Amino acid sequence: MGKCHSFYVIKGAEYRMNAKIPVGVLGATGAVGQKFIKLLENHPWFEVTEVAASERTSGKIYSEAVSWKQVTPIPEGVRNLEVRPCTPGLNCRIVFSGLDAAVAGPIEDEFARAGYVVLSNSKNHRLDEDVPLVIPEVNPDHLGVISIQRRNRDSAGYIVTNSNCTTMFLAMALGPIHKAFVVEKVFMVSMQAVSGAGYPGVPSLDILGNVIPYIGGEEEKVEVETRKILGTFNGKTIDLADFPVSAHCNRVPVEDGHTESVSVKLARKTSTAEIAEVLRTYSGVPQRLKLPSAPQTPFVVMEALDRPQPRFDVNRANGMATLVGRIRPCSIFDYKFTLMGHNTIRGAAGASILNAELLKAQGYLE
Amino acid sequence: MGKCHSFYVIKGAEYRMNAKIPVGVLGATGAVGQKFIKLLENHPWFEVTEVAASERTSGKIYSEAVSWKQVTPIPEGVRNLEVRPCTPGLNCRIVFSGLDAAVAGPIEDEFARAGYVVLSNSKNHRLDEDVPLVIPEVNPDHLGVISIQRRNRDSAGYIVTNSNCTTMFLAMALGPIHKAFVVEKVFMVSMQAVSGAGYPGVPSLDILGNVIPYIGGEEEKVEVETRKILGTFNGKTIDLADFPVSAHCNRVPVEDGHTESVSVKLARKTSTAEIAEVLRTYSGVPQRLKLPSAPQTPFVVMEALDRPQPRFDVNRANGMATLVGRIRPCSIFDYKFTLMGHNTIRGAAGASILNAELLKAQGYLE
Amino acid sequence: MGKCHSFYVIKGAEYRMNAKIPVGVLGATGAVGQKFIKLLENHPWFEVTEVAASERTSGKIYSEAVSWKQVTPIPEGVRNLEVRPCTPGLNCRIVFSGLDAAVAGPIEDEFARAGYVVLSNSKNHRLDEDVPLVIPEVNPDHLGVISIQRRNRDSAGYIVTNSNCTTMFLAMALGPIHKAFVVEKVFMVSMQAVSGAGYPGVPSLDILGNVIPYIGGEEEKVEVETRKILGTFNGKTIDLADFPVSAHCNRVPVEDGHTESVSVKLARKTSTAEIAEVLRTYSGVPQRLKLPSAPQTPFVVMEALDRPQPRFDVNRANGMATLVGRIRPCSIFDYKFTLMGHNTIRGAAGASILNAELLKAQGYLE
Amino acid sequence: MGKCHSFYVIKGAEYRMNAKIPVGVLGATGAVGQKFIKLLENHPWFEVTEVAASERTSGKIYSEAVSWKQVTPIPEGVRNLEVRPCTPGLNCRIVFSGLDAAVAGPIEDEFARAGYVVLSNSKNHRLDEDVPLVIPEVNPDHLGVISIQRRNRDSAGYIVTNSNCTTMFLAMALGPIHKAFVVEKVFMVSMQAVSGAGYPGVPSLDILGNVIPYIGGEEEKVEVETRKILGTFNGKTIDLADFPVSAHCNRVPVEDGHTESVSVKLARKTSTAEIAEVLRTYSGVPQRLKLPSAPQTPFVVMEALDRPQPRFDVNRANGMATLVGRIRPCSIFDYKFTLMGHNTIRGAAGASILNAELLKAQGYLE
Repeated sequence: MGKCHSFYVIKGAEYRMNAKIPVGVLGATGAVGQKFIKLLENHPWFEVTEVAASERTSGKIYSEAVSWKQVTPIPEGVRNLEVRPCTPGLNCRIVFSGLDAAVAGPIEDEFARAGYVVLSNSKNHRLDEDVPLVIPEVNPDHLGVISIQRRNRDSAGYIVTNSNCTTMFLAMALGPIHKAFVVEKVFMVSMQAVSGAGYPGVPSLDILGNVIPYIGGEEEKVEVETRKILGTFNGKTIDLADFPVSAHCNRVPVEDGHTESVSVKLARKTSTAEIAEVLRTYSGVPQRLKLPSAPQTPFVVMEALDRPQPRFDVNRANGMATLVGRIRPCSIFDYKFTLMGHNTIRGAAGASILNAELLKAQGYLE
Repeated sequence: MGKCHSFYVIKGAEYRMNAKIPVGVLGATGAVGQKFIKLLENHPWFEVTEVAASERTSGKIYSEAVSWKQVTPIPEGVRNLEVRPCTPGLNCRIVFSGLDAAVAGPIEDEFARAGYVVLSNSKNHRLDEDVPLVIPEVNPDHLGVISIQRRNRDSAGYIVTNSNCTTMFLAMALGPIHKAFVVEKVFMVSMQAVSGAGYPGVPSLDILGNVIPYIGGEEEKVEVETRKILGTFNGKTIDLADFPVSAHCNRVPVEDGHTESVSVKLARKTSTAEIAEVLRTYSGVPQRLKLPSAPQTPFVVMEALDRPQPRFDVNRANGMATLVGRIRPCSIFDYKFTLMGHNTIRGAAGASILNAELLKAQGYLE
Repeated sequence: MGKCHSFYVIKGAEYRMNAKIPVGVLGATGAVGQKFIKLLENHPWFEVTEVAASERTSGKIYSEAVSWKQVTPIPEGVRNLEVRPCTPGLNCRIVFSGLDAAVAGPIEDEFARAGYVVLSNSKNHRLDEDVPLVIPEVNPDHLGVISIQRRNRDSAGYIVTNSNCTTMFLAMALGPIHKAFVVEKVFMVSMQAVSGAGYPGVPSLDILGNVIPYIGGEEEKVEVETRKILGTFNGKTIDLADFPVSAHCNRVPVEDGHTESVSVKLARKTSTAEIAEVLRTYSGVPQRLKLPSAPQTPFVVMEALDRPQPRFDVNRANGMATLVGRIRPCSIFDYKFTLMGHNTIRGAAGASILNAELLKAQGYLE
Repeated sequence: MGKCHSFYVIKGAEYRMNAKIPVGVLGATGAVGQKFIKLLENHPWFEVTEVAASERTSGKIYSEAVSWKQVTPIPEGVRNLEVRPCTPGLNCRIVFSGLDAAVAGPIEDEFARAGYVVLSNSKNHRLDEDVPLVIPEVNPDHLGVISIQRRNRDSAGYIVTNSNCTTMFLAMALGPIHKAFVVEKVFMVSMQAVSGAGYPGVPSLDILGNVIPYIGGEEEKVEVETRKILGTFNGKTIDLADFPVSAHCNRVPVEDGHTESVSVKLARKTSTAEIAEVLRTYSGVPQRLKLPSAPQTPFVVMEALDRPQPRFDVNRANGMATLVGRIRPCSIFDYKFTLMGHNTIRGAAGASILNAELLKAQGYLE
């Protein structure tokens, strides 16, 4: 950091500079909340000091309140935390929100107004004019809108959102491509893992040996969020990128990993080799800042004809990579390719954490 | 039929008019061959009298030569047939070819030259100039090219092909849409069942909880076969339809039923309701002729937001229906929708059988 | 029937003899309730005239109240029925109960007291002293306890139960084996389909690529229900069969069909061939009476080393068969074998319907 | 080690003491061979210097010869090795054999005769009188038979085998139980992952949504191997343990992890708590010697009613743990429980490597 403050003052408590930043998790017993807790275990900068959830569980010890569904055990530091209600009063600086969209909106507002930095994985505020929807590798400059948000809401707190899980891998890949070749049109058909639907989520009777060609609200999210992420911060708000996106979203019987078949029309002439090169060599702000959760290279470009595949590739770079394969000409647009990534890590909890790391590294937590 | 011949003469043998037409199955022990045998059980017009397969099994009794993978038992009339080699000399008028593409080409040629009517499910001759690639509901008039084929090959025999399984549902749906609204561009992303790869086909280690974003040669087939089926018979050959098709093909862990996400650009203005109506009310030649394997209506247009789904809908109309759902506007082209159908019935063996029925009903077997 | 009544009088209404018997379905919107409705479509003796469900849906039209999960559409005669509350007052003679065990007990009691014949698939009354737990092929004589039940409850109505789905195939197979060779000990390990857990039932995240080695209460049910079914009606109550059963129950990612690995110790010396013969040739009361839902032969004994398998064999005899394979010596007990059957047909709704058919055929509905 | 040799002499070459021991992998392109290579990456004692496979691939570079199916890339040190034929002449001290049983027997013999230490995962020599079948936690003393084997074969080389994957978890758990309470009878029903069948192994059409109640030869292996492992080395050969084992083996649609339902009869009276305690606190020779691949504790005893489960627990202790759950009374024998473990790590390649570590630690490589 190199800053000279010797301690934080958060909610009246003092923290030494070399201590980790205390963070809370909202919706801590849910699927995304659990993933936050798992990914924050041993985080070099953040430490989970508060877990909050619905009234039904608040007051209980976390290990008793949760139906833990991760393959590693509940982190020791969290296991015995008391579950708190989702209201300000949590002893932390940052809250990660894995709240259900049915309730996330006003709760996140309340925390931001109370001075907390809210990293939200929920859809509710993603399209708010003064809320950044950020992928650190693609549009870190959109954080500029925070100062406007703080002014609008008259608070030191604020909300930063990350995209929907399906949008994530599309917007990630389009980032460098748009910069290099100018995207004009985008088709995307997703084949999404069941973990994207939370828990209990998709009943097994609905998905075993099946494809469900519908995920409520998903296509609309992909079509607009992609354009906001690739849009331009004009000093006041974000202008949406000026190209249409058409999305078809499907659920498939895969545990983790969203696969996307994409076709793009580009303004500048290029080649499959050049696109592959642009992605393979891309390095963004998180890579330059060496953020703890950042993958060393944001993209893994695979040469094998039949990759990427969720079962074999989803955990590349600890689930933070965007995998790209089958870059080839398209008989209607210019190029087509396959994207894949871990929907609950890079596409959800890991994205919020990377955003928080970016905020810290760029001085937004001071 | 209404014709007055009182018997057939086939390969020197006479058959009474009211007897069934004897048919053979080439590649009878394979996945498609088995499906032919299953679907021809109790067929009102055809009777399997010959089963032919590779040298390895010829000479054996069918029930001992085959690793039967259908849910119903081997039909009684076929169980004890001797497996014959795949060379002319079979005692039948029609041969259904479920041969592997590695060998199908010359064998089918040989049978056609020897005077047999060859109904092929293999890719080898689909694009031959004088070979029709037919969906009875869409382009029955392409059978006109048979007379040219017979002349070219100087034989009473000939080859008629049906499309690749993925092409089938796309070309089926585009048929009435093209006629009504003129298709200009087509995007299609498939999520294909494992049964499409034959047996043993896809190893379980490759597909359990996975998506494989590549099926060798499939995209090329879809892109050109669709245009041949929707093309025009100009009296001599088939002119390809004049619109581009872009296909992405994926394998998913589904047993039976290919699902397709499709976007289409149309020349004429229309509405989702009108497209639904055109498909729902469509009736083609097989329906008017009441061909035995024809679905009563070629399309089932589903209203539920999340249908069609392979597990629940694949067996509609005994696997001969094309299911359509989610007809809605597309933000780039005009409309998008989901297609689904049974890849080994309507998309393979059932398609060949329906073609044979069309040939008989239109006098091509005389 | 051969009886001379020219009409029924049910709940004050008259029915002509040749009319179908009106039946109601309790819990009609649930998984088992739906299966009842599907299986009763076109039933030669019974007609669904009433559908009843929880307060939440009562008053609605059935097609709007239900999330229909069968592969065939809602039967026409049921589609527009009004959903009634689960209280007596239904216009029918028989009620099939697919109620959740949490509520089934008192509701079924109330219907029986009100004069209805209650065919229950729920666990609640299976072990009641005066309630028969019946498999028509195995212990039809247990219906004798009905007269005691009627006396106890002072009602013309009564309750007849069928077993838990896992118990069903075990008790079916043990029936003829016990009669022929006297069972002394039974080990059973089940691998159960997800459809046994109802809907939404098992979350896909829990079962994709997984085995869950626990199903609450299932092992206890198998261990005692099997002994009641194979027990003896002593004129007053049922004496449990005098052999221990040890059950391990597991859930596997299979849609339909419970598979069971079984070892049995027998009192009489026999051979694998003799056991196969006893099962293959077995014919029970439902076969002799030609009950409409009875399989022609109760058992399908498969010779192939790797059968039965749920995917390929579960629908034998319309899901009413018990499939048996791999009969072989056991190195601890005498013999071991594999059982399999359709858990929601023969193991649930179909079992209740077969019981109702037995009741009608043996004069218990008069 | 504590020995004072300052270098090895292997096949005429000298190795410094602190260098890693060079090892070869036979069948290096197959499923087990790949797992060996993956698990040996960064091994502190061993280094893969030779990869050998069938004639078809020998001479090629490993990365081109193999269809690599592991989730991590081919280790750098192996990627460019030339594939050698499976004949002595490999420059290494130890060979790990992942050969197919069809060829393993004579090849392993040949290597042993030529002076190599052969760690075999194949079934061929497991039951040979002078070949130890070893689980380091259970029967490390069986290595004593090596001196007899060497004498019999007049070679410094020898063969050490590990058990079949299903046997592994059963014999592991029975080890401490037998020592503490004396096992008298064992029932075991397995639900085995597809990875146990190698690659391509089980076709997806056979296993999606299915259970296959048969795995050729598996039951026989479990029944005898378990007794050899728990048997007694009498100074000359191994006396089989004196209790019968009855095994039913099933294949289920799980990628990795064999689950086993087990019932045991014990000679000494005990309790579920005591059995849990014996397993939880068990520590064997590999733990005391801190062998690199040894799990810290051999058993993970799970309290949750529905664990262990392959999807969530299979990678405990890097796939080297044996997971135990649901210890409870059995109504026929004394106790029943569920076992689970990683079939290709602890149950195959990892077992061979642990055996090699034991050999080194106990001076058998000198």
